[in-house]
Formats: sequence, C-alpha cells, structure tokens
Amino acid sequence: MGLGGLLVGLFLVSAVLVGTSVRHGVSRAEPEPEPELELAEWDPASGAFPEDSLWPLPQSLRTSPRQLQLAPDRFQIVHGAGSSAGPACALLQDAFRRYYEYMFGYARWLQRGRKGLAAKPELAQLQVVISSPEPGCNGYPQLASSEAYRLTITEPVAVLKADEVWGALRGLETFSQLVHEDDYGSFLVNASEIYDFPRFAHRGILLDTSRHYLPLKSILTNLDAMAFNKFNVLHWHVVDDQSFPYQSIYFPELSNKGAYSYNHIYTPTDVHLVIEYARLRGIRVIPEFDTPGHTQSWGQGQKDLLTPCYSGKQPSGSFGPVNPILNTTYDFMTKFFKEISSVFPDDYIHLGGDEVSFACWKSNPEVKEFMKKQGFGIDYAKLESYYIQKILDIVSSYNKGYVVWQEVFDNKAQLKPDTVIEVWMGNNYVQELSSVTGAGFTAILAAPWYLDYISYGQDWKKYYSVEPLDFPGSEKQKKLVIGGEACLWGEFVDATNLTPRLWPRASAVGERLWSSRNVTDLKDAYKRLSNHRCRMLSRGIAAEPVFVGYCAHEARRR
Amino acid sequence: MGLGGLLVGLFLVSAVLVGTSVRHGVSRAEPEPEPELELAEWDPASGAFPEDSLWPLPQSLRTSPRQLQLAPDRFQIVHGAGSSAGPACALLQDAFRRYYEYMFGYARWLQRGRKGLAAKPELAQLQVVISSPEPGCNGYPQLASSEAYRLTITEPVAVLKADEVWGALRGLETFSQLVHEDDYGSFLVNASEIYDFPRFAHRGILLDTSRHYLPLKSILTNLDAMAFNKFNVLHWHVVDDQSFPYQSIYFPELSNKGAYSYNHIYTPTDVHLVIEYARLRGIRVIPEFDTPGHTQSWGQGQKDLLTPCYSGKQPSGSFGPVNPILNTTYDFMTKFFKEISSVFPDDYIHLGGDEVSFACWKSNPEVKEFMKKQGFGIDYAKLESYYIQKILDIVSSYNKGYVVWQEVFDNKAQLKPDTVIEVWMGNNYVQELSSVTGAGFTAILAAPWYLDYISYGQDWKKYYSVEPLDFPGSEKQKKLVIGGEACLWGEFVDATNLTPRLWPRASAVGERLWSSRNVTDLKDAYKRLSNHRCRMLSRGIAAEPVFVGYCAHEARRR
Repeated sequence: MGLGGLLVGLFLVSAVLVGTSVRHGVSRAEPEPEPELELAEWDPASGAFPEDSLWPLPQSLRTSPRQLQLAPDRFQIVHGAGSSAGPACALLQDAFRRYYEYMFGYARWLQRGRKGLAAKPELAQLQVVISSPEPGCNGYPQLASSEAYRLTITEPVAVLKADEVWGALRGLETFSQLVHEDDYGSFLVNASEIYDFPRFAHRGILLDTSRHYLPLKSILTNLDAMAFNKFNVLHWHVVDDQSFPYQSIYFPELSNKGAYSYNHIYTPTDVHLVIEYARLRGIRVIPEFDTPGHTQSWGQGQKDLLTPCYSGKQPSGSFGPVNPILNTTYDFMTKFFKEISSVFPDDYIHLGGDEVSFACWKSNPEVKEFMKKQGFGIDYAKLESYYIQKILDIVSSYNKGYVVWQEVFDNKAQLKPDTVIEVWMGNNYVQELSSVTGAGFTAILAAPWYLDYISYGQDWKKYYSVEPLDFPGSEKQKKLVIGGEACLWGEFVDATNLTPRLWPRASAVGERLWSSRNVTDLKDAYKRLSNHRCRMLSRGIAAEPVFVGYCAHEARRR
Repeated sequence: MGLGGLLVGLFLVSAVLVGTSVRHGVSRAEPEPEPELELAEWDPASGAFPEDSLWPLPQSLRTSPRQLQLAPDRFQIVHGAGSSAGPACALLQDAFRRYYEYMFGYARWLQRGRKGLAAKPELAQLQVVISSPEPGCNGYPQLASSEAYRLTITEPVAVLKADEVWGALRGLETFSQLVHEDDYGSFLVNASEIYDFPRFAHRGILLDTSRHYLPLKSILTNLDAMAFNKFNVLHWHVVDDQSFPYQSIYFPELSNKGAYSYNHIYTPTDVHLVIEYARLRGIRVIPEFDTPGHTQSWGQGQKDLLTPCYSGKQPSGSFGPVNPILNTTYDFMTKFFKEISSVFPDDYIHLGGDEVSFACWKSNPEVKEFMKKQGFGIDYAKLESYYIQKILDIVSSYNKGYVVWQEVFDNKAQLKPDTVIEVWMGNNYVQELSSVTGAGFTAILAAPWYLDYISYGQDWKKYYSVEPLDFPGSEKQKKLVIGGEACLWGEFVDATNLTPRLWPRASAVGERLWSSRNVTDLKDAYKRLSNHRCRMLSRGIAAEPVFVGYCAHEARRR
C-alpha cells in the first residue's frame, strides 16, 4: 500500500509526532514501539488510499485512483436485474436502508444541500444481484452458508453479486467502508473490483450474560459491531453459576429463582428479538447451556437437579454439579433441551461440559454407590462422560448438532463424528488442535482470544498475530478447524464497559478469521484498524482508541 | 461491622454463591480468592447496615438501628439557624438541589404517590449550618480549606455543621449515602452521629486531554464522580506532545496549529465552565503546562520555541524540548504564564519538568556553545535546571505556587521551600518520598496510582493497600506528604472508555486519601465499594463492576 496516506474525510488516522515520547514510565512496563514518522498524516492534501479504511481486508482487491462521486439525495441501493431477490426480501430491504444511513446519515443531519459540485463522474446506484434460486431472505445463516461476494464499482452503477443474501450483507459492509467524505463534504468512492470470501466459516463472539446481566440494548449494539467486523456467530453463554437470566417456558422457576432479580431476565420476546436482529445481519446465535458444572443458578429453581454435597456422613447443605445418577435429571434435561432446540433455530447448541469439579460427587455416598454399580471404579471422568453422552443423545434426538468445550473430548466421551470441539485452554492449544483434528473432530479455536484478560498497551497485536492453522497436522486436519471465537467472559464486564473492552480488540480476531493468511503486516493493520475504529465510533459503537490520536467527528457527536 | 448484611433497597451487593468457580482459566492467570459464603446476601429480610454503603468511610461514625423515614414530597435541605450562609449562597443552593435529586430523583419518576405509610418517625429536614464568618460561597477551595463536618441525624431534623461550605459539600455527600430505599420504596436513614475530615488535604485525579481529546461532557461527568468520592483536585494535564487543545487568548496559534483539529479545543468558555463546575463541588483545578519536554505540539504554533535538532552539522528538521538559550523563549513564557495565572484561579500551577531528553540539546551547536559559556560542562541536567528556575521565577512573580514532577527535585534545581514535588516514578517511590520530604519539600504521591496501567482482576485492592506514609522519615517529614493523585494518562483512554476505566478503581485511592489509616479491611471495603459503584451507576456514572453480581436498578435504567 505504499506511502502512508491519510484518509481525509470521514476519518483522520491517529496522529504520530516527531520526537514524541510516550509519557511517564511506559518504558517501565510494556514498551510501545514508537510509530515511524509519517509526515503525510499532517498533510490534508495528501492522497487517500481507499484500502486504508477496509477492515477486514478483502481476499482480492483492485482499486483505481479514479474517483466517483455519490449524491446522497440521488444515490440508491437497489435489486439488480436478474436477482433472485426483490423488494419482498425484507432482509435486504432492511440492509439497504441501514447501509445508506451508515454512509450518508451523518451528512443528512448537516443538511449541506450542496447539489451543483459534481466535477467527478457520478455513481448513481449500487445494484445487488443474488444468483442462487434460494436467496435466503427468510432463512437463517448456517455454517455452510455462502458469504462470498463480488463487488464492481464503476460509473454509472456499481454491482454487488452474491450467491445468497449473506454474501450481499458482507459486500454492503465493504462498499460502505469504501465510501468516504472529502474535505468539502463530498462523498467519493474509488473505482474498484473486489472478490471476497471468508477464510473460516465460524467467526464468533462469546458474550456471558450470567456473571453480569447485559441489557438487551448492549447485546444488539454488539451485533451491530459484529456485522461491521464480518463476524457471523454470537456464542451466547446465557447462564452459569451466578445467574439464570433465560426465562424458560417449561420451567419458569429457573429464572424466577435463579436470575439476579425479576429485572435481570431475558423473556421469550427478548430472545426472539436477539435471534432476529442477528439473522438480519447474517449472524447465527448459538446458545450455550453449560452442564453438568457451572450450574449453581439452575439449582435455585429446579429441585433435586444438583448433587447434594456431603461433609462426612451428613449433607453439607451445599450443592455440586448436576446429579448424574437420577432419572429425574434426564427427564428434566429432555424437556428443557426440547424447548431450547425449538426456541433457537441454529443447527447447533453449545452444551458446555467444562471445568467439572469432582469433589462433591466424591463426597456423596449415593454417587459412590452408583459408580460401583456402573463399574467406573474411582474414575469420575467416566461418570462425567456417562452424563455428557446422555445429554448429547437427547440433543441429537432433536436433530441438533452440538459444540462442547475441550474437556469433553479430553475425557474421552463417545462423540458423534460431527461434534464440534471448542479449544479454550491457553497452556497448550496448539497440541490440542492437533489432537482434536487428529481424532477427526471439527475444532473451533478460542484459547488465544480470551478478551476478558486485559493488559496495558496494544494487545490487539497479540490477537492479530495468532495463526490458527499453525499446528502439527495434515491438510485434512487443517480443514477441520472451522474458525474461532473471541470470548468476553463477564466476571468484570457489564453494560458499563462491554463495548470499549471488546472493540476494536475483537476486530483483530475478526480480520484473522476472515482475511487471507498472508495479511499479517502490523503497520498496515494499525492504520486500517485506527480508521475502522473511528468508523465504528461514527456508527454508534463506543470502541476504545487503538493508541494516541483522534477521530474527526468524535468531538461534534458527543 | 459484624455479619455481612445486605443493603436492601437502593443497592444489592454482588452475589456470591456456594461452589462458584470463576470460569475458564482464571487460575491460569491471577487467581481471584473465592469470596466467603454469605448466606445473608440471599435473604432480603436480613438487616441493612447503614455503613455498608459509605465510601469513603468517615473518620468517626456511630449509627443506631433506629430508622427514620423521609418523605420526598416534604423533606427539605435548608440553611440552619445561626449559619453564616443563607439563600444567597448559590453554591449551597445548587448543592441542596443536587443532593435532593441524588436521593429522591429516581423515586419521583416512578411517582409512587405513597403518602400514608409512615409507621416510622419522620426526618423532616436536614439543616446545614456554616460556622465560619467567611463561609466561602463565592470563593475557590484551597489546599488549606476546611473540609471537616459534623452530621447528627435524629428526628425531627438532622443537622450538618461545617466551618466552611467545603465541609458542607462533603457532609451532604455522606448524608445522601446514608439514605436508602427499602423493599417497598420507602426512604430510610438510621439515626447517626458522624464527625469527619480528610486524612490528606490533596486528593487528586489526573486527566490527560492531549493524547486524546476529552469532550467537555466527559470532564464534567468526571467531576461529578470525583465529588461522590470526596476527591478535591482535578489535575488537568491539558497539553502535551500530541496536541494542544487549550485555546490561548494571547497565543491563539498554539491551538490553531497544535490541536488535533478546530473541533478538538477548549475555548476560554469551556475552561471557565470546568473551573466553575469544579468549584461548586469543592474541587480545585490545577492546570499542568508541562515544559521543557512534552512540548512538540507547542512548536506547531509558536515559531522558534523548540530546539532545532541537528543531524551532524545540519538541522535535521525535527525539534526537541523548549529552547532554553533564547530570550524569546522567556518572553513567550512570561506572557503565556501571565495568562494561565489569570485564567486559573487556583494558587498552584503544575509546571511539569519531567522526562526531558537531552539528545536534541546535545546535537545543537548553539546549545553546546551556551553550555560552555555558562560553565555547565556537559551536564545537561544543569541546563534543564537553568531553564526550570527561570520558569519558576516567572510563575512566582504572579504569586502562584507550583507543583513539579520529581525530576526537577532529582536534578537539583533550586526550588522555593513551598514547592510541591509530585512523586511518580514507580521503581522506588518510597525512597523518593523520604528524600523529598527529608529535604523539606512538600510531596504528592502518584507513583502507585497510575490507573492507565490495567491488568486482569480486582486491581483496586492493590491501589487500596498502598500506605502513603510508609516510608523512612520523621513525623515532620510525614506531615509534608499532603496527599496523592490517581493518574489516568490518555494514551489508551478517550471518551469511550474513560469512566469505566477510572471508576471505581480510583475510588480505592479516594478512600485511602480520605479515611483513617486503619481503614484497611479488604472484605469490608469490597462490600462497600460494590454498593458505592451501584450508587455511582444510579447517578449516571458508568463505573465498571468490581466483580460478579448486579445492581438493582441497572436493568431498568438502560
């Protein structure tokens, strides 16, 4: 991308100054490499490189210096000739309006009313053409959905072609990122040709609504940000030990007793709204109902579900994981997961299965007796697998696939071949990827992307520099890694700090999972990421700064 | 404080559960000690301890179980008999209304209209009595201002006594923290007797508006939060290398050229608004104009102010610290600090003096020549002190005191005895406090409270556990430590993340600087801090969570 250029107009990149020292002991902690001098950044007359604002970078991109002008009052996003989608495709109609707003909304408030300035050729339309006979307007995105698109920008009309609406959504995002404002408020786009598709099919964000309740608005805002970064899976870690905010239809006592309060719940309407808001942005919602551990809150509203712990010969009054030895447990789970399978349309449910403590099971005489009967000896991992396998069978019977945390694999539960294993343990994830895929299972990588862990400085570089396929294994094994997830566990996160903690740090993961493997230049990424975070800010996402500098529009909008 | 009680009503403390494991590898990083089981927290009928919501804890506090009831429609805060302040005291009038809103504002929206429930004795008034003949209504808070107050809460009226309005402001905050709502929406306060005063006179927050511009609104919101935590100094690090947002009256080119953009400036009106908003909350505003280093942005708008650096025998085109060898430099500084001394009413100005790199001075032949003439040899610290002393003399001539960073002391500049030295270097601050006070200088401690450094977990405990007087020295030396500052440098902070990054972490520093030395119980502090952060949230401060849990009102208010 040659010389460092300043994208004048919508964004100004972070300022870098000669002789700037990062103040006050940064050298003591984690030294920030001093960015190189880029004088051009102070020169508003310098040329803007259209690719300086793209995030994640498309797979293939050709741009020309030839600029086309867009007139907000005339420009239209329309269904192109031959498209299998038309005005009845509410998903696209909604997306057209949304992206029009992102591109021009701010300018319209200003009401510049400038109409006669067009010295450049005008781009009058973006025509969207869906080629598949089943465009997907009323469906849900799936693991196998096509997100590829081709975008050709020349006057008088640009054309966005995609197999399905999911690719069109990604292409609209890219188109909107290419449109920029010049110093005089004109909207420009460079003639360009883009062919793009994701490197990995599963690109997720994990939100945790149990350690802290997240108001609906926070979740929806996050879905917006996900779309801006081409993420396509919301992994909703909805319940855990601390609270049970999911309002069940069959078992209302679970949230009545297990939620923090009657205010801190997601009603069926809330849940449907999240799913629909996500669908309209091409995002799958995979709910996680983690058992048998992490279930303290379940026990509040469901009698006899958890294992009573013993202190010597007496029940201690506290409870451990789900009780795996009772038939009532499986009766409950059968009914509960029937509801979950019906409420959440995605093909997959996340069943958890992580961090099961055996201490309580070991203390309970009836569990010990059951172990003996089953011939498990003292291997409580066998009891855990016994439980998990019954749960997997229940969920399979509803025609759902399942994702589980890596311990389920590590503990050698018998798994259906299409089980997805999520690798989260940070100490040796490279080897784990090798083992999981070596055994023929599909894997999702989360371990290096636990964004709840914070540290001083530009930690996005660490997330960005992870190469998911850098593990020992065959080509066939590599193909089994279907993607990854940035996880924002909620111990220290609620609505007050979720957005700036997650964005733009998760953006680094977003590009790693979408763009080509060879897109690894940190300096180029820094420039694009700084612009991208300013754009997120202008679209209402309070993404934190990458480093020193400013966004052109931030002061006016607050 | 005995049994862990739940303050039902306004706040619910963070929930703690049996057998809760902190999920997913927290054990890999920084283990969080598991809070002990407090069953009472799940019992809404448990008694509320009024002190469970106080932050910072008063010096002396006696409360009784006897509860008084407040009727929002009738309760008044008024000037008491014998007060030297009356309705003409706009500062107090404003504070009365403000604290009325904090206590009842939310309830009034709900319009419960419950009038006949009073089964408890009613508290009808809070009478505020200022005893000094000069109450301070129109003045500015100073280092020597009295913030002591005495609060007596019995029916039918509570009395708040203070020498000056500054103490009354602190007492109003405490009173408002004692008023709480019960399960049925009644407002209650326990009969209490409080005598309170700050342990340290200087309790500051440093905000940095150069690395990122902070919109006025962010600064004002922060002043609100400071008042809730009894901080009394805003150390405004207004300019630095990256940008010069201060709009000077004498030298408008400084911000015209040195600000990020014309939007990213503080006009004289903005500055006056900050000062007045702070004054009304008993907060001093100490501006920092740091020289001779950290001045790259000054050079944009003031020709010949910075030292031209040389590369061999040629100027390199880049610039170093302020040029200390030119008369024009001192002419400029004389005029500039005349303006600053007049715009900012506080008795002190912060003159910086930190992190001066000598490389550029060393490269410049004219500077070398000057060193020779002055007999400085090759000791550039002498040149720095030469410069600093001239600046101190200029500022002294305007009858201002000054604060400087510790290097100015370390480099042995000749300082007036009343110079305040701010200790910031983290590696050996205990020894530095000893040296500074041993030489007879006043000290402010900042080193252990650099809140821009972040890490995973409850780092507030680290800040809380600092004891500022724990250094080798005489009683006389200890008295020279007048306080401390929590510093939020701006490299990675702007309006998107300032509030949750600063609060409630800075609250830990606030209590350390206000409360008695023996207030060090982390478990008790955890409970009070969790309640305090929920209260901040309910007053519009997006303070981040301390740990898992929830605030009763958070879901409704978003």
